[in-house]
Amino acid sequence: MKKRYLTLHAFLVAFALASAVAHAQDPLPSWNDGPAKQAILDFVKATTDPSNQKFVPPEARIATFDQDGTTWVEQPMYTQVMYCMERVPVVVAKKPELKDVEPFKTVLSGNREAMAKLSMPDLMKILAATLTGMTVDEFNAEVKKWIETARHPRWKRPYTELVYQPMLEVMKFFRANGYKTYFVTGGGQDFVRVYSEQVYGIPPEQVVGTAGGTNFGYDKSGRPILTKEPKLLLNDDKAGKPQGIHLMIGRRPVAAFGNSVGDKEMLEYTQAGGSARLMMLVYHDDGEREYAYGPKSKVGTFTDALMAEAKQKGWIVISMKNDWKRIFAFEQ
Amino acid sequence: MKKRYLTLHAFLVAFALASAVAHAQDPLPSWNDGPAKQAILDFVKATTDPSNQKFVPPEARIATFDQDGTTWVEQPMYTQVMYCMERVPVVVAKKPELKDVEPFKTVLSGNREAMAKLSMPDLMKILAATLTGMTVDEFNAEVKKWIETARHPRWKRPYTELVYQPMLEVMKFFRANGYKTYFVTGGGQDFVRVYSEQVYGIPPEQVVGTAGGTNFGYDKSGRPILTKEPKLLLNDDKAGKPQGIHLMIGRRPVAAFGNSVGDKEMLEYTQAGGSARLMMLVYHDDGEREYAYGPKSKVGTFTDALMAEAKQKGWIVISMKNDWKRIFAFEQ
Repeated sequence: MKKRYLTLHAFLVAFALASAVAHAQDPLPSWNDGPAKQAILDFVKATTDPSNQKFVPPEARIATFDQDGTTWVEQPMYTQVMYCMERVPVVVAKKPELKDVEPFKTVLSGNREAMAKLSMPDLMKILAATLTGMTVDEFNAEVKKWIETARHPRWKRPYTELVYQPMLEVMKFFRANGYKTYFVTGGGQDFVRVYSEQVYGIPPEQVVGTAGGTNFGYDKSGRPILTKEPKLLLNDDKAGKPQGIHLMIGRRPVAAFGNSVGDKEMLEYTQAGGSARLMMLVYHDDGEREYAYGPKSKVGTFTDALMAEAKQKGWIVISMKNDWKRIFAFEQ
Repeated sequence: MKKRYLTLHAFLVAFALASAVAHAQDPLPSWNDGPAKQAILDFVKATTDPSNQKFVPPEARIATFDQDGTTWVEQPMYTQVMYCMERVPVVVAKKPELKDVEPFKTVLSGNREAMAKLSMPDLMKILAATLTGMTVDEFNAEVKKWIETARHPRWKRPYTELVYQPMLEVMKFFRANGYKTYFVTGGGQDFVRVYSEQVYGIPPEQVVGTAGGTNFGYDKSGRPILTKEPKLLLNDDKAGKPQGIHLMIGRRPVAAFGNSVGDKEMLEYTQAGGSARLMMLVYHDDGEREYAYGPKSKVGTFTDALMAEAKQKGWIVISMKNDWKRIFAFEQ
């Protein structure tokens, strides 16, 4: 019978060995060695080591991530705006009187150049028509269906495959070290929540985004329903990001990741919380594998002033070209 | 050397025994046996058993709790309103011109009867003056100090000792079974967040409450600050509760606890989500150990219509008098 028993000692030795192997594995295999990768490794090590001055207790380990341009592709247009454009025919089918009315007429024409030139008020009309007026359950079902079938114009792949593998590794690494990972996105909170858990491992309750009001009522059978209203509660961009963090999380992050002027205030707010802080910005300088945006890009604007502030304040700029060994999981 | 080794087998036996002892312990020792206690035990057992039709996957295990009157005393006045009243002298010291202006004059008089009769618009003026205009950090520090020193007029104890021990046990029992416990309170989100983790084990990011806007700016030294503004974003009461749940959690709860007409919509919304649902209402019928409110009570109103709806829909009414063996932890 003796052989059937492993001693506790042997068990512990085996456990220690497995543990050592796990530690030897690189948690960020899609990153090239360099200051950006090293900063992440050093930060997580310091903030989880009780003997380190920068130790952060588990309950305060909050890391926030912008989405568009930080964890997935935002060119040539934000994915959610693409969704809204592609929903216009459905909306017009229900309300034919919109067919000859701008901006719906332009969207129906399919002329991408004209669509790209739509003004902000016109864009707002399209967003209101396609993102509100239905129940929360209906909206979720529509987005889910779209996200499964829509394809990015350049790669002809689902948008959910155009996530940055290096950033998925960062999120996973943070979570493995007791961090709660949150999205803090200018995108619609309800939109991102539909796929965030499956794609990024971020549950709906950890998605902070631009949010509209809902109306509580009852359907014909007396069943309670929530209807999405064209009433803005939180514009989760720029100064709205720290406001959204306070509203939805109620704690200051210790690490924050962004890629544009829309993330500046979030990084400032994070940094002001104490010494153990990590602020990083993804810089799109890889026109071959992804996109290289100039400081005047309509989406993901990275101004010279932002670059100057990053240098001055010690925020780390991630070069997609130099710091990322591969960008997408489908690349070999 | 042999004696120094425990076999894995022995280890497993010891573990199984410890586990059996844990299971034999009553998770709700402050509850009398009866239908309310049994409903909680049955619900948690069913929703965590993968072979049960009512099984709820771990990520969907969300339980929401009203605070005032559901998890702590709300008489003779909501604790937060008490805070606001007691802050009035501080506000008036900074703005002496308010001294002779209503409603501040009445509050300064200390006449409790007159204070209890203040109109809703007057109350709003007091709330705006005492809850907004300062930075988030200043507000948190003020509430923390007050909550440590203020005493309830009847028990002469800190408000944080006037929490219902049976409800603390319910929260702990839910969490031990993989549930995330949330407050969904008509009280101020920022106010409750100050003590919720320490008193109830509910972290700030799991407090949904009445919420106002903040303004992001910089202080004289260039440090980013958030200032509390008198702008209502979410009135987390009645229909506002499902709206708040959608905004802040983005998932429908599977269990919800309340005590008044303010919780009706939250319970309806919870119940509409499926078959594995638990809706409970604390009923204040114990004038000796706590309070017995009639259906016309100004706070925690429990109308006859609510009682009728509870009976019709199978919501379980908790009798404080009959279902709770003890109400407060300080009782022996």
